[in-house]
Amino acid sequence: MRQVGADGLEFVRALQAVVGSRAVGLREPVFGGNEKRYLQECIDTGYVSSTGPFVARFENDLADYAAAHNVIAVVNGTAALHLALVALGIKPGDEVIVPALTFVATANAVAMAGAVPHFVDVSWETWGISAEKLRSYLSELLQQRDGSFFNRKTGRPVTAVVPMHTLGFLADADGVAEVAKEFGLALVEDAAEALGSFVGGVHAGLAGQAGVFSFNGNKTITTGGGGAIITRDSSLAKRIRHLATTAKLPHRYEFEHDIVGYNYRMPNLNAALGVAQLEQLPAFLERQRTLHLIYAEALDSLEMGFSASERPGTVSNYWLQAFVLDSNCAESKNAIIETCLDNEIAVRPLWKPLNRLAAHHSSPSDDTPVADELYSRVICLPSSPKLAS
Amino acid sequence: MRQVGADGLEFVRALQAVVGSRAVGLREPVFGGNEKRYLQECIDTGYVSSTGPFVARFENDLADYAAAHNVIAVVNGTAALHLALVALGIKPGDEVIVPALTFVATANAVAMAGAVPHFVDVSWETWGISAEKLRSYLSELLQQRDGSFFNRKTGRPVTAVVPMHTLGFLADADGVAEVAKEFGLALVEDAAEALGSFVGGVHAGLAGQAGVFSFNGNKTITTGGGGAIITRDSSLAKRIRHLATTAKLPHRYEFEHDIVGYNYRMPNLNAALGVAQLEQLPAFLERQRTLHLIYAEALDSLEMGFSASERPGTVSNYWLQAFVLDSNCAESKNAIIETCLDNEIAVRPLWKPLNRLAAHHSSPSDDTPVADELYSRVICLPSSPKLAS
Repeated sequence: MRQVGADGLEFVRALQAVVGSRAVGLREPVFGGNEKRYLQECIDTGYVSSTGPFVARFENDLADYAAAHNVIAVVNGTAALHLALVALGIKPGDEVIVPALTFVATANAVAMAGAVPHFVDVSWETWGISAEKLRSYLSELLQQRDGSFFNRKTGRPVTAVVPMHTLGFLADADGVAEVAKEFGLALVEDAAEALGSFVGGVHAGLAGQAGVFSFNGNKTITTGGGGAIITRDSSLAKRIRHLATTAKLPHRYEFEHDIVGYNYRMPNLNAALGVAQLEQLPAFLERQRTLHLIYAEALDSLEMGFSASERPGTVSNYWLQAFVLDSNCAESKNAIIETCLDNEIAVRPLWKPLNRLAAHHSSPSDDTPVADELYSRVICLPSSPKLAS
Repeated sequence: MRQVGADGLEFVRALQAVVGSRAVGLREPVFGGNEKRYLQECIDTGYVSSTGPFVARFENDLADYAAAHNVIAVVNGTAALHLALVALGIKPGDEVIVPALTFVATANAVAMAGAVPHFVDVSWETWGISAEKLRSYLSELLQQRDGSFFNRKTGRPVTAVVPMHTLGFLADADGVAEVAKEFGLALVEDAAEALGSFVGGVHAGLAGQAGVFSFNGNKTITTGGGGAIITRDSSLAKRIRHLATTAKLPHRYEFEHDIVGYNYRMPNLNAALGVAQLEQLPAFLERQRTLHLIYAEALDSLEMGFSASERPGTVSNYWLQAFVLDSNCAESKNAIIETCLDNEIAVRPLWKPLNRLAAHHSSPSDDTPVADELYSRVICLPSSPKLAS
């Protein structure tokens, strides 16, 4: 029997009631503030590159917003993750626990540190790593030796865990942080999508040693390309800054570098855009929240599924709106997506779980039934804040 | 006996005759064209990030200028080097030949690929790797086995060489390319400083498989932060593009990635600046050349040394003006630099040879008498094109 709505036409009509009948992108940035003014200021002053006042201003504004003590702005979210891992001592040959359901950059950053991503499942409740399942998985998997924990199967040390806040919904990073402590793991939160998301009043990214954001063009705020690391640990922040600027030692004129460093600092030009965008963040977040309510009203009555929403005690930024198909509609997912695209409505599935990708196929992985099922049932919807204005 | 001019005052007076008596930076960018207009266009169209017309336009304009068949714009010069090395198959545990006299990023990019930089000396004639000395060094050092060449001392395969064009002066990349062929090495030219430099009418960066540029704020043209890879090899270019964009396979909506990739593409915002800057490149180069002549006239009569100039058959971009102290003045180098800085004239020495740095101290190295001597005798001078206008 053919499923009701399986051809996607009903879904498209419901979407069009929200987004209109013209072509609509998945996420377009909104430039409604001081963007032009600050960019002009860069040109007028000559500061476009690694020095210039907007970088510090962006970092300070972000530190204030997130109540993070230290912010280091870098070229993108992948660089932020890579740098945080290196600064925390993650070395070639280590294994780093990563959720199977995330953008591939989470695992690529681990590989850039020379380490091996080790995939675990996510939970239905949070769409992120479950602390309980992680604890029982690691208890089975790891063996303590000389104060470190090793994977019994591969013999490699497991040294970090990177929970990720899927689409802005909060993973249980505090729970994961407890597990991390038990097994001596560094914790870096991949909050690339979670600027403006809070748990118990605390901004995403502050549960462990470091958290990272992305300011790519499709994010809640954009710097063109950009990312940042936040941390409460000032000595870690100092180490990260040092690593981000080729590990150059302070000297009036000599070029001394004490360790292998990177060229990862955000240019002043991009930070200028970021300062202007950050001024509008509360307005963007309000619209993203409103858009969620509009979608819920338009789509949940279709009886094909439900609009994903924040769990109690958390505030999601609703960065990317997501509709979860009922399990009996899951096999129509691709047909629905294709009908939307045929009608110039930009939708997309979640990422294919990373343990299923050729790029990371040889990496160790737990079974990932929840990641697989979420992938099979979720459609991400047009999410530009302007759709709610 | 105290050296004439050893306190640097004479040198400062001669410099002030060129740069004036106000504070002067080492290199400040000139924004005299369409910079503001193109940046505004980014904001008006909403394209600031990884998609947008300025990236392709910048790449095409640069390909035209350098007569390079393929250009891939990336986030910075370090990323460009790293990406070129990875795309050419350089693997963890390989050794890569790098000149001792270069900015530390050349060696850091090798380390980012998991490989080990192996330092060689430069020549007085070119300030870059000497083909003859490299041939005789490698003939001694390398041992052929199963079609590859291994370092007899470390047992590691030596798989690439990265000649660098110091300050825009041309290394003998063609000669090095011949040696590279003899020993099966990939050749990536570090032309970070050499946009606008030519040898025999051919732009720097085209002697081997790939060449890289930097567009940092201190370079001849700037994109804020940025870099590019040029190559005549279209299939290599395709591989580089793929690696630069998380190795995502083309698909209407699925996220498939076949290998570990990077997030290295230049944002449209930065490319917009680059397009405007590239339009002014001929004017910048003319001023840089004029400035060299002005310095030569002002400084060479001091009888403390000479202004470095291009060797026959090559065209230098004169990116950074350099004065070579006579060997009997070398011990006054730091005093002269400090007197200049005290007088708010931004000068600097060359980079401390990389084999002398803590960051790369454990890497293999040949003896580097020429790099050491150049480091002991060269002072880089204020080089902003506007100083010659």
